[in-house]
Amino acid sequence: MAVPTTMRAIELAGIGGPEALRLTNRLVPAPKSGEVLIRVEATGVNRVDIIQRTGAYTPPYGVTDIPGVEIAGTIAALGPDVADHRVGDRVCALVIGGGYAEYCAVPAPQVLPLPGGYDMVRAAAIPETLFTVWTNMFDHGRFATGETILIHGGASGIGTTAIAMAHEFGARAVFVTAGSAEKCAACDRLGVTRSINYRLEDFVRIVREQTKGRGVDVILDMVAGNYVPRNLSCLAPDGRLVLLGLMSGTREIEINASQIMMNRLSVTGSSLRGQSIAQKTRIAQALENQVWPKLAAGRMAPVIDTVLPLERASDAHRRLEGGHHVGKVVLTLV
Amino acid sequence: MAVPTTMRAIELAGIGGPEALRLTNRLVPAPKSGEVLIRVEATGVNRVDIIQRTGAYTPPYGVTDIPGVEIAGTIAALGPDVADHRVGDRVCALVIGGGYAEYCAVPAPQVLPLPGGYDMVRAAAIPETLFTVWTNMFDHGRFATGETILIHGGASGIGTTAIAMAHEFGARAVFVTAGSAEKCAACDRLGVTRSINYRLEDFVRIVREQTKGRGVDVILDMVAGNYVPRNLSCLAPDGRLVLLGLMSGTREIEINASQIMMNRLSVTGSSLRGQSIAQKTRIAQALENQVWPKLAAGRMAPVIDTVLPLERASDAHRRLEGGHHVGKVVLTLV
Repeated sequence: MAVPTTMRAIELAGIGGPEALRLTNRLVPAPKSGEVLIRVEATGVNRVDIIQRTGAYTPPYGVTDIPGVEIAGTIAALGPDVADHRVGDRVCALVIGGGYAEYCAVPAPQVLPLPGGYDMVRAAAIPETLFTVWTNMFDHGRFATGETILIHGGASGIGTTAIAMAHEFGARAVFVTAGSAEKCAACDRLGVTRSINYRLEDFVRIVREQTKGRGVDVILDMVAGNYVPRNLSCLAPDGRLVLLGLMSGTREIEINASQIMMNRLSVTGSSLRGQSIAQKTRIAQALENQVWPKLAAGRMAPVIDTVLPLERASDAHRRLEGGHHVGKVVLTLV
Repeated sequence: MAVPTTMRAIELAGIGGPEALRLTNRLVPAPKSGEVLIRVEATGVNRVDIIQRTGAYTPPYGVTDIPGVEIAGTIAALGPDVADHRVGDRVCALVIGGGYAEYCAVPAPQVLPLPGGYDMVRAAAIPETLFTVWTNMFDHGRFATGETILIHGGASGIGTTAIAMAHEFGARAVFVTAGSAEKCAACDRLGVTRSINYRLEDFVRIVREQTKGRGVDVILDMVAGNYVPRNLSCLAPDGRLVLLGLMSGTREIEINASQIMMNRLSVTGSSLRGQSIAQKTRIAQALENQVWPKLAAGRMAPVIDTVLPLERASDAHRRLEGGHHVGKVVLTLV
């Protein structure tokens, strides 16, 4: 496959609003040892991209400044020491950055085959959420069959994926919060036990009522801030609160140490970006073994909200920031 | 064995200082179904007894108001449905209360044989600390061979036991804090990697230096309060902070959610008292299988600070509250 020297890409013309995203030309990256170069056909849009755009995240030294952390496409070239992949393979991948571009270099172990029957748009919609949900729900939340779960932001990409994962891995009850009747209805269609409109209802009261006062075993929380003490009040004994986002905007959280000890609770969480290639490789292997067959069989599927061409990246960010989306926003490049 | 109707016991003449502990006569409890009655020969003194004396803990409905949570003695009678024990067995036990008395009824699964070669004083010094350290270090802290650990209050009963446990279960490095040169020297004699006098040194700085900036895998903390953010600053990636006491006196703790996520930390902990008999049974079985042989072989031993007769319970509390003890304070009844 002939690889050009330059490519179209979206760069940040400074820190700012969605208009800071600008179409440009860049050099095509050269895959290093252990990396493959992917001709990107679709790339998912994520909250971490917005965080980068607003200046709250700066890529570390040596990492591309182009946003975008998940891609689907075709392998265009192999770097040295790559054995498991071939040029022409249709793949998707979690990347540390650079997804908003025609070509992207990525460590080979983070590259997964397209799930059976998947097109590029759906494949680009799954890596970030599946890696995030898997490691937080299972590695950190230690979710087990027969347990109950509360998922905040149920209508988001993370939320809809977590709902599907909870169903597929044997949740006894799945509670979600969302910010509108429409979003709650969308969650209800995904078969949740009870959706909670957090603008109208107190999730602590509802969860405690629905669980006869016991609370839930696991909570996935991308809000943090003042949600944290409320979360602790609706966790069952031995329950785990998993933080996977800071949408509240505050980093400082207050917890009651006595509540932790009396109920043997855990407060934990993770961010994908900080993890090593080895850790991402481990997550990728678990996903390919345990989740890819379910995707191919249609037992789980990403919820796609909007598909836009790459040059409309600003509109994609506006859609995500507007907060009315249900599921993923994806950019296409072909 | 003839069991009398009444017994000597220490009761609380109201809420107050050590002088509130008063020798009295009480009815000998009758063992219920699944319980054994133990003729107590020694009972360990613990911080939870002080917490009860000062009114910060009130036994739940149906639990004796007599303090004392660990005993050693001889089985004097069996309640209905007890198969695994015989009258005359020399045993020790974790109890929910009532240890400061000549007789104490206890659920049979919480009763363990005296470790080989142990007298009653040493046997009474181990249940509370071993149950507490085991469940916090392994069940909640998930400590694994080859990991590093920081133990606050290294010279306390919990601390000295945790040091021994860390050595026996393959810690790569053991750091402790203590409040005086004497206590640090006592910890050094137990073979710790580095003792830290928290009145003179910053434990965060020392731990980070000693671990080349990585931090430790597990922290056992009975202080909480403003130790918590400092603990999080010297935890390694995937590290676990285990809260097992609130000696700071404050329940509210502040944590940085971003720090939790970036380093995939866990904040957890437990209190023995809130746990079910089933949970205590599981801990008892683990201890008998994995720790009792080490006690019998002399590979671990409780550190005994002071032994006093039951009627000097007030002095025992003064000793613990004075903060100059190294190891356990034990009351004897024979």
